[in-house]
Amino acid sequence: MARLSLNQETVKQWSLPELAEGCAKAGLRHVGLWRAPVQSYGPERAARLMRDAGLGVTSLCRGGFLTATDPGERARALDDNRAAVDEAATLGTDTLVLVSGGLPDGSRDLHGARERIADALAELGPYAAERGVRLAVEPLHPMFAADRCVVSTLAQALDLAERFPAGQVGVVVDTYHLWWDDTVAGQIARAGRSGRIAAFQLADWVTPLPEGVLLGRGQLGDGSVDLRWFREQIEAAGWDGPVEVEIFNPGLWARDGAEVLAEIVDRYRRLVL
Amino acid sequence: MARLSLNQETVKQWSLPELAEGCAKAGLRHVGLWRAPVQSYGPERAARLMRDAGLGVTSLCRGGFLTATDPGERARALDDNRAAVDEAATLGTDTLVLVSGGLPDGSRDLHGARERIADALAELGPYAAERGVRLAVEPLHPMFAADRCVVSTLAQALDLAERFPAGQVGVVVDTYHLWWDDTVAGQIARAGRSGRIAAFQLADWVTPLPEGVLLGRGQLGDGSVDLRWFREQIEAAGWDGPVEVEIFNPGLWARDGAEVLAEIVDRYRRLVL
Repeated sequence: MARLSLNQETVKQWSLPELAEGCAKAGLRHVGLWRAPVQSYGPERAARLMRDAGLGVTSLCRGGFLTATDPGERARALDDNRAAVDEAATLGTDTLVLVSGGLPDGSRDLHGARERIADALAELGPYAAERGVRLAVEPLHPMFAADRCVVSTLAQALDLAERFPAGQVGVVVDTYHLWWDDTVAGQIARAGRSGRIAAFQLADWVTPLPEGVLLGRGQLGDGSVDLRWFREQIEAAGWDGPVEVEIFNPGLWARDGAEVLAEIVDRYRRLVL
Repeated sequence: MARLSLNQETVKQWSLPELAEGCAKAGLRHVGLWRAPVQSYGPERAARLMRDAGLGVTSLCRGGFLTATDPGERARALDDNRAAVDEAATLGTDTLVLVSGGLPDGSRDLHGARERIADALAELGPYAAERGVRLAVEPLHPMFAADRCVVSTLAQALDLAERFPAGQVGVVVDTYHLWWDDTVAGQIARAGRSGRIAAFQLADWVTPLPEGVLLGRGQLGDGSVDLRWFREQIEAAGWDGPVEVEIFNPGLWARDGAEVLAEIVDRYRRLVL
């Protein structure tokens, strides 16, 4: 329980004060936050709110979208990522999750898009590290390759991250995105060896996928992912950091937040630990 | 044009006689067929129909679904696959496409499911080869791993196929399923070296994906796939067989079949050749 972290998008129905109160009441020690609600509330105020509730911030979601070819768009993306780093530093988290970006409109050049991400990491990495924040490249499920993230496997994420110092760029291991991949155990071990694991996130895979597929994540235990196996793999790779539950699911958002959190705690105890 | 094949599911609005007539009129030499319409029409009658229209059958879709753990269900699946081999032989095609099957209800054991596929290939391979038919394992996009096919990459399909003689088990290279994978060029080359390429299928990747994601394939050129790059890769690997267009898309099914086929021929000439 000391390692469980609740990503706020899982209980989107909660305001930041409700999140702080609800998590503290449930005995949680950590939360993962998202930029939009933090920005509305004010990063410093949000930091104080969490601190006062005894909650550490395990990650901030999300920077990224670094694949634009248009120079103006690219400059704006870099500026926005520097702002995200600043917000992460204010919140006291050392991890900024990056969703790297898909293909620009009309482009079919996956390799070029991946290289532009590398160029952006080279620019952003030192800025982040100076502020005590590490960029965490999240491989997203291949079904998001066109429109959200051309980094589709843990191997690709590590290929990118390992071009930079480990203190600047790490990777996210999210069960939802990686569960299908028969090379993932070896890549988790590689991530551990090269000191690249920056975050470990849990969600289950359920079908049928909804239109647009973004909001189809399942509650722990409702789907096809062997969650305990993942935890064992990542611990064998040396990870003893937070275990963050991040589920985007309108069914969970429609319920009472405290009830959803209690269900997560129960599933976590039975299926992950 | 001599290599273009139209998979009948692309113009599902056409009956088999309409398909034969429409393809012959458009100057096509090949079609790919599906079991259900062939069974309704009668396999021998369908074979004659295609032969009389001057059309070769490049593949039959689909056998597979070989992951059941229940012994009765498994025996029925093997029987059904033997029937599919017989139908392929009757149609005069040397290629039976296999969609290998997802996880059984409640199972999270991807490795076990993949091993059951291997066991089934060991049983079915000799039966197929004796009838002049090769089993073609199709890796499906990872978004289908739970409910349709635990074989998600070309590397996995080749790992399976290469356990058996090349005359018994090959693989399908389908752009829709494989376009996102940065290891695919190397795996296509590997498939060529080991004589495993059994079919080459084209569809484009378009977003947003529809609910259930099965019917979201795009017309050639409408999406993110570099189709010409794929053709060049597979030709460099030695493939000079048919290029089959297989698109499941209700938008295409709602249109006049001849118009859809004319559009495909045009896109094929401009974007693939």
